Amino acid sequence: MSASDQSIVTAGLLVIGDEILSGRTKDVNIGAVADFCTDLGIDLKEVRVVADETDDIVAALNALRQRYTYVFTTGGIGPTHDDITADAVAKAFGVPLPINQRAREMLETRWKQTGTEVNEARLRMARIPEGADLIVNSVSAAPGFRIGNVHVMAGVPIIMRAMLEALAPTLKGGRKVLSVTVPAGVGEGTVGGPLAALQAEFPDVKMGSYPQMGANYVRTELVLRSSDEARLNAAAAKVRDMVNAAHQAAGLPPLE
Amino acid sequence: MSASDQSIVTAGLLVIGDEILSGRTKDVNIGAVADFCTDLGIDLKEVRVVADETDDIVAALNALRQRYTYVFTTGGIGPTHDDITADAVAKAFGVPLPINQRAREMLETRWKQTGTEVNEARLRMARIPEGADLIVNSVSAAPGFRIGNVHVMAGVPIIMRAMLEALAPTLKGGRKVLSVTVPAGVGEGTVGGPLAALQAEFPDVKMGSYPQMGANYVRTELVLRSSDEARLNAAAAKVRDMVNAAHQAAGLPPLE
Repeated sequence: MSASDQSIVTAGLLVIGDEILSGRTKDVNIGAVADFCTDLGIDLKEVRVVADETDDIVAALNALRQRYTYVFTTGGIGPTHDDITADAVAKAFGVPLPINQRAREMLETRWKQTGTEVNEARLRMARIPEGADLIVNSVSAAPGFRIGNVHVMAGVPIIMRAMLEALAPTLKGGRKVLSVTVPAGVGEGTVGGPLAALQAEFPDVKMGSYPQMGANYVRTELVLRSSDEARLNAAAAKVRDMVNAAHQAAGLPPLE
Repeated sequence: MSASDQSIVTAGLLVIGDEILSGRTKDVNIGAVADFCTDLGIDLKEVRVVADETDDIVAALNALRQRYTYVFTTGGIGPTHDDITADAVAKAFGVPLPINQRAREMLETRWKQTGTEVNEARLRMARIPEGADLIVNSVSAAPGFRIGNVHVMAGVPIIMRAMLEALAPTLKGGRKVLSVTVPAGVGEGTVGGPLAALQAEFPDVKMGSYPQMGANYVRTELVLRSSDEARLNAAAAKVRDMVNAAHQAAGLPPLE
């Protein structure tokens, strides 16, 4: 492994829930976890969405946790019968799923404040795989947990984001990846050829091309990413020159 | 296989693109494909999001296409060097990726109308795996394609939706799944116990529970799904009774 590889930190995300796959709920957690990872210099490599089925969750979890530095999961840790994420994680790790006394205290303290009755369904949320650490939930008290490299979070977006903030200090970030966006006023087909040539010239700067189309316009955003600022800037200057040439040919003004 | 199993049609979705995993683009295609499948009675079982890396695309594609009736992919079929979905699909199926004459004609007809230059980058979009059928793109002409049970579509949402409409008549739907939503004005912890008992009583009606939380309220939507309308209605009546009892205990008005 070369020196630069040692600082690559990767992640996989597992979104759990029938409601995403039926279309009833439109996921927003993938984008939030992606932004979170990018900010920390963690390379989110893969996302999977599976149903509330124990075998599917266990299989996806085992695939992801062997492959990436970190795994994040969202969904399925509430109080109802279809919340089976904790059961599936305990099964994947081969550990029991007892009531965790600290989780129970967190919940009972909150329930006392809000006058909420303690019942069997709510106590499901205190079941935590043996050996896991809790992830604090500042919104509704029911904690997430971390076991091995797997971080189990709620599916409700405001709670998920609060849990991400809570666990951020425990994660090691990788090299920060820098990016430059060059907005081209022409289509991908115009810039595709010269962009491929520039990508070949700068293999250490990843160049992406993202078309935007409306009824009467077509634009392309060219996004360059690298952890080496000097190389990034050198590549960006050449991409800007290329876009300006395309603009001139199309009778468009140069980039600002 | 029992008679009822014969009409279960499943699908997997593969979303391809670095821009989703970096957070730069927030995916909306998962929700659109999920709605589409639900409307056709197709059970979307799994979604994966992978980067623009040939090996990752091939591995995910082979896993999904062996497991489900249909596979849909979105992204990576444009004209630039990072658009490698067609290459990866051809590799997964072990077939060549020549310029498809019909695809080329579709593109050249559109380019003639719009005064767009034919170049090598644009002609990348006419490369179609041997043996594939084209999926018409009414928006920007560059076609998707179907090979085996895999349906390859664009990532730009308006184009992806146009392609879904184009391929809908070619798909067989399964039994239509009906749903009833019961809105409860109490939290999941309150309804969790009795809902689990009702789920045990109606194993053929899938009951899901979806919390909604704001600063000063908590609600829970209970969603029942079944392809048997009589059983669905019987279960829904009991769930409504259960919610009304919970509302009464909480001093809330009964359901309308």
